[in-house]
Amino acid sequence: MTRYGFIGLGIMGSAMAANLARAGFDLTVWNRTPGRGAELEGLGATVAASARQVVADSDITFAMLADPAAARAVCDGDAGVLAAMAPGKGYVDMSTVDPATALAIEEQVTRRGGAFLEAPVSGSRKPAEEGSLIILAAGNRDLYDRSLPALERLGKKIMHLGPTGNGARMKLVVNMVMGQMMAGLCEGMALAGASGLGVPDLLEVLDAGALANPMFRLKGGLIQRGDFTTSFPLKHMQKDLRLALALGEQSGQPLFAAAATNELFKRALALGLGTADFSALASAVDGFRRP
Amino acid sequence: MTRYGFIGLGIMGSAMAANLARAGFDLTVWNRTPGRGAELEGLGATVAASARQVVADSDITFAMLADPAAARAVCDGDAGVLAAMAPGKGYVDMSTVDPATALAIEEQVTRRGGAFLEAPVSGSRKPAEEGSLIILAAGNRDLYDRSLPALERLGKKIMHLGPTGNGARMKLVVNMVMGQMMAGLCEGMALAGASGLGVPDLLEVLDAGALANPMFRLKGGLIQRGDFTTSFPLKHMQKDLRLALALGEQSGQPLFAAAATNELFKRALALGLGTADFSALASAVDGFRRP
Amino acid sequence: MTRYGFIGLGIMGSAMAANLARAGFDLTVWNRTPGRGAELEGLGATVAASARQVVADSDITFAMLADPAAARAVCDGDAGVLAAMAPGKGYVDMSTVDPATALAIEEQVTRRGGAFLEAPVSGSRKPAEEGSLIILAAGNRDLYDRSLPALERLGKKIMHLGPTGNGARMKLVVNMVMGQMMAGLCEGMALAGASGLGVPDLLEVLDAGALANPMFRLKGGLIQRGDFTTSFPLKHMQKDLRLALALGEQSGQPLFAAAATNELFKRALALGLGTADFSALASAVDGFRRP
Amino acid sequence: MTRYGFIGLGIMGSAMAANLARAGFDLTVWNRTPGRGAELEGLGATVAASARQVVADSDITFAMLADPAAARAVCDGDAGVLAAMAPGKGYVDMSTVDPATALAIEEQVTRRGGAFLEAPVSGSRKPAEEGSLIILAAGNRDLYDRSLPALERLGKKIMHLGPTGNGARMKLVVNMVMGQMMAGLCEGMALAGASGLGVPDLLEVLDAGALANPMFRLKGGLIQRGDFTTSFPLKHMQKDLRLALALGEQSGQPLFAAAATNELFKRALALGLGTADFSALASAVDGFRRP
Repeated sequence: MTRYGFIGLGIMGSAMAANLARAGFDLTVWNRTPGRGAELEGLGATVAASARQVVADSDITFAMLADPAAARAVCDGDAGVLAAMAPGKGYVDMSTVDPATALAIEEQVTRRGGAFLEAPVSGSRKPAEEGSLIILAAGNRDLYDRSLPALERLGKKIMHLGPTGNGARMKLVVNMVMGQMMAGLCEGMALAGASGLGVPDLLEVLDAGALANPMFRLKGGLIQRGDFTTSFPLKHMQKDLRLALALGEQSGQPLFAAAATNELFKRALALGLGTADFSALASAVDGFRRP
Repeated sequence: MTRYGFIGLGIMGSAMAANLARAGFDLTVWNRTPGRGAELEGLGATVAASARQVVADSDITFAMLADPAAARAVCDGDAGVLAAMAPGKGYVDMSTVDPATALAIEEQVTRRGGAFLEAPVSGSRKPAEEGSLIILAAGNRDLYDRSLPALERLGKKIMHLGPTGNGARMKLVVNMVMGQMMAGLCEGMALAGASGLGVPDLLEVLDAGALANPMFRLKGGLIQRGDFTTSFPLKHMQKDLRLALALGEQSGQPLFAAAATNELFKRALALGLGTADFSALASAVDGFRRP
Repeated sequence: MTRYGFIGLGIMGSAMAANLARAGFDLTVWNRTPGRGAELEGLGATVAASARQVVADSDITFAMLADPAAARAVCDGDAGVLAAMAPGKGYVDMSTVDPATALAIEEQVTRRGGAFLEAPVSGSRKPAEEGSLIILAAGNRDLYDRSLPALERLGKKIMHLGPTGNGARMKLVVNMVMGQMMAGLCEGMALAGASGLGVPDLLEVLDAGALANPMFRLKGGLIQRGDFTTSFPLKHMQKDLRLALALGEQSGQPLFAAAATNELFKRALALGLGTADFSALASAVDGFRRP
Repeated sequence: MTRYGFIGLGIMGSAMAANLARAGFDLTVWNRTPGRGAELEGLGATVAASARQVVADSDITFAMLADPAAARAVCDGDAGVLAAMAPGKGYVDMSTVDPATALAIEEQVTRRGGAFLEAPVSGSRKPAEEGSLIILAAGNRDLYDRSLPALERLGKKIMHLGPTGNGARMKLVVNMVMGQMMAGLCEGMALAGASGLGVPDLLEVLDAGALANPMFRLKGGLIQRGDFTTSFPLKHMQKDLRLALALGEQSGQPLFAAAATNELFKRALALGLGTADFSALASAVDGFRRP
C-alpha cells in the first residue's frame, strides 16, 4: 500500500489532507507551525516531527505552501524535504508558484534521484473541503499516474499539461481570462447604471443566456451590494495580469484588451483596494462618479 | 378571449407564431412575402391580407421584423399597422431596433390611442423554436401584463426593464459584455498557444471552474477547429460595441477595456472578416503569426 | 482686378478680412449681426446688405462661419449665397465643417455653375491677425490657383489636399495626433510627479531635445500651474477623436493608442471638464490621486 | 588644476572624451578593448593601463559603458574602479542604467569614501561629437558642481534632478513620451493613408504648426520612404515602455495610453522588428494592410 505524506496544513492543505485521511490512505503529515495536525490524527494520520521525516516515511509526498518562498524554504536544511529525498520517492508540489520556482525545485529533487510533479490548483477553501478542486499538474508523467488515486480524492478535474512550468503558466492564462471577464462585468454594470438601466436587471439577463457563469452569478450580486470581502485579493489578480502580459511579451503575443484591463486593476490598486476582493475593480471603473 | 396578431414570419417570427398557435391562442398572422403562413394555417391560425388587417382583427399584435427600417415601414401606409391602430389595441414590437426607432414607433402608436411595448429578444433560431428566448421588454406596463400569457409561450425569461428604449439599451450592454468575453477567450487561447500550452487543455480548464459558460463551451471548440460559420456576424458585434461606447459617451461612462476590444474587432473587420462569425476575432488577435 | 467678398466677421473672419483690405484688394463684406463692418470700411472695404449681395458683387467669395449649421444657413434663402451664385463665380468656405457638409455645399454651388473650394484653417485668433494660418484647401484646383493671391495674405502655409472633403479629414487626423501628444504629455507629467521627479524638470528636458514642440512648451507650463483657461475646448477635442476613430472604422484602420486616448478624454468629460481647455486632460490622468 | 579620467571609449565615449581633451583638460583614459586611445593621445590625453589606474590618477572619473552589466563589471576586481577609489575622489557614471544599478554602484563608491554622480545622457552620436547632449545628472550635489566645467563641454543642457536614481527614472519617462509621440505619428500616417489623404501632406501640416518637432520631421520622412535604419532599436524602446509602466505600477499611476502604445511595440517585436529602428512601429500599426 502506497504511503502518502502531506506538508503544509494551512486552510487549503488541512482540508486536502483530511480528504486523504478520510479515504483511508496511509498518511503522514507535518506543518511548520505545530498543533495543526490534531484533527488529522483523529482521522488516522501520523504527525511527523519534520518535513524530512514525512518524506522519509512516504512514497509520495504532497506539499501545499503559501508562496514560492515557502515552497523553496521547506525543501532546504537538515530537516527539509531534500534531506530525505531519494530514488523511488515522489514529490508533488501543489503550491502556486512561478515556472522558475517549479523548475528549480524539480532540479533539486531529481538530482537526489526523486521524481517531481508540479500541481497547482484552481479553487479555494470550499472546493478544497469538498474535494472538487481543479488540479493543473505538469512534469513527471509516471509520478502523475502513481499519484492519481490520491489526486482524485482532492479534485474533480485532474489534468496533466506537459513539462514542468506548464501548470504555473496555465494558472496565469486562466487568471488573465478571469480578470478580463471581471472587467467586462464591471464595465457592463457601470454602463447599465450610468444609462438608466437597472443593474440587477442586467445581472438577471446575463445569468439567463449563453454568458451565464458562476463567477458573474456570485460576484455580480456582491458588487451590487458593495460587498468586497476578500476571496481573491485584487493585488494578486493584478500581479497575475502583469505576469501574463510578460509571458505574452516573451512569447511574441500582444494582448491589447488584457493590457487595458491591467491598467484598470492598477487604477484600483492606486485607489487603495489592493487587499480587497478583486471584484472591487468595480470601484475603479465607475468610482469617479461617486463622491 | 384575447385575440392575438403576429406580423413578420421570417426564421424567428414563424417559429414564435407557431408556438402561439400550438398553445391554442386565437391568432391572425401576416407576412410581407406571401406563402409563409401555410404552416401556421395548419396549426389553426388565420392569414390576413395586410398588416392593417392583423391589427384590426387583434387586441394585441406582435411584430418581428428584420431591422429598424422594416420595423418602421410596416407601420406606414394604407395597409400598415397605424391605419388600424385605435384605443384599446396594443402593439408589441419584438424586432431589434435602436432606442430612437422604438421611441418613434411608440409616439405614432400612442398618438392613435394605442399602447406600445418594445420587446427585443436575446437568442436565435433554436430558442425561438423551443420557446426559450430571453425577452427584454420595456414601455407600457399594462400592455406588458396583458401580453404575458403569450410572451410566456415565447420565452423562458421575460423582463420589464422600464421606459421604452431600455430594451434596446439592455441588448447593447449585454452584447458589449459578450464582446469582451470573446476578446478574453481569444487572447487567452492565443497566449496559451504562443507559450506552449495545449489550447484544448485551456478550454477544458475554463469549462471546469467558475468561469464556465455556454459561449466558451460552444465557441472555444469552433475557434480551435477554425470553424467560423456565421451565427452572429462579426460586423454586427462591432456595430454594437461602437453603439455601446457611444452610449457610454452620452452617459459619462468611460470604458477602457471595451474600447480596446472594439479596436480588436475593427482589426478583424479590416482583415475582411465582417460577415464571418464574431468568434473570427481569434484571427485578428493572433493572426499575425499566421502566414 | 479680381473682386473679393468675405462673409462672416467673427473673431477669426474680421481679422482675416482686415488682412485682405490692408493688402489693397477690392473687398465687399457682410455679417449676419450688423455693425461688424465699420472697422473694415475704414480700411477701404464695402459693406453689403446681404450674403447674396456679396456674391453678386464679387468674383471670389470667402466665408468663415461658426459651425456646419451656420455654413449651410448662409447659403440658403432669398438673401443667401446661392441666390447669386452663377458661372464664373467662386466660393471658398474656410469654416470648420465635416466632409459631408463640404460636399453638400459644393453640390449646390456647382449646380448653379459656380466653383467651390473647401479651405478650413489650423490656428486661432493670433495667427488669423498675423496672417500666419495654416490653410487646408481641397476641391476645385482652378479656383485654388485663382484664390492664392488672397490666401497668401491669410496664411503662411497654404496646401491643396485633393478632392473636397480632404480638408476636413486632414483637420481630424492632425487633431487626433494632437490629442495623442497631449495624452503623452499628461501621462509623462503624472508619472514624473508620482515617482518623485520634478515635473518642471521633465518639461525642461522635453524642451531641450528631439521632442521639443510649441504645444508642450505652452501647455506644459499651464498644466503645471493648473491654468486650464480655454483655448481649444476639451469637448471639441473629444469630438474630433471620436470622428477620427469613426474615419478609421470606415477606412479599415484600427487605432489602438488613439482609442485609449479617447477614453481618457471621455473620462475628463465625465469629470465635468468639457468646456475647459483640452489640456485639462491632465486632471483625468492623475486626478484620482487628488482629494 | 583638476585631473579628469574617462573610462569607456566606444562610439559615445570616445567622442565625449575628445571634447574634454580638445578643451585642454588634464585627461587620462582607458578602454577595455585596447587601441581606442590612439586618437585621444594625439589630442593630449594619457592612456592608462587599467580602470584602476585612471581613478588613481584622476580627481574625477567619468564612465560611459554599454549597459548595466558593463557598468558594474568595470568597478570590480583588482584592476577595477573601486580598487583605487578613495576619499576626495569622484565617480560620474554616464552609462544608461536602471535605478537599482546606479544605487548599487553609489553604495560601493561611497563605502570607499568616494563621491558618486549618476549622469545618463539623452542624445546619440552626433550630439556627443558636437558637445550638445542633454545630461540628466542625479546624486552627490557637490560632485555635480565640481564636474560642471567638464560636463559643460559634453552637453548643451545639464540638469541635477535630485537623489541618485532620478537620472535613470527621468530617461524612462522621457522615452515613454517619445514612444507615445511615435505611436501618434504612426497612427496619424496610417489613418491619412487609409482615408485617401497624402501622407507627405500630413507631414507638411504637422511641421507647420504647434506640434512641429525634430523627431516628426526626421522620422516622418524616413517612415514614408520605408527606411528603418536603426538609430534607436525598437526592442530598447519597448523595454523602456515596459519599465515605465512598471514604474507607474510601483508609483500608483495607471497609464492607459502608454499601455496601449506598449502593446503596439510588442506587436512590432512579434513581427521581427526588434533590431530595426523604433520608427518601424509604423509596420505594426498598418502592416496588416500590406501583403
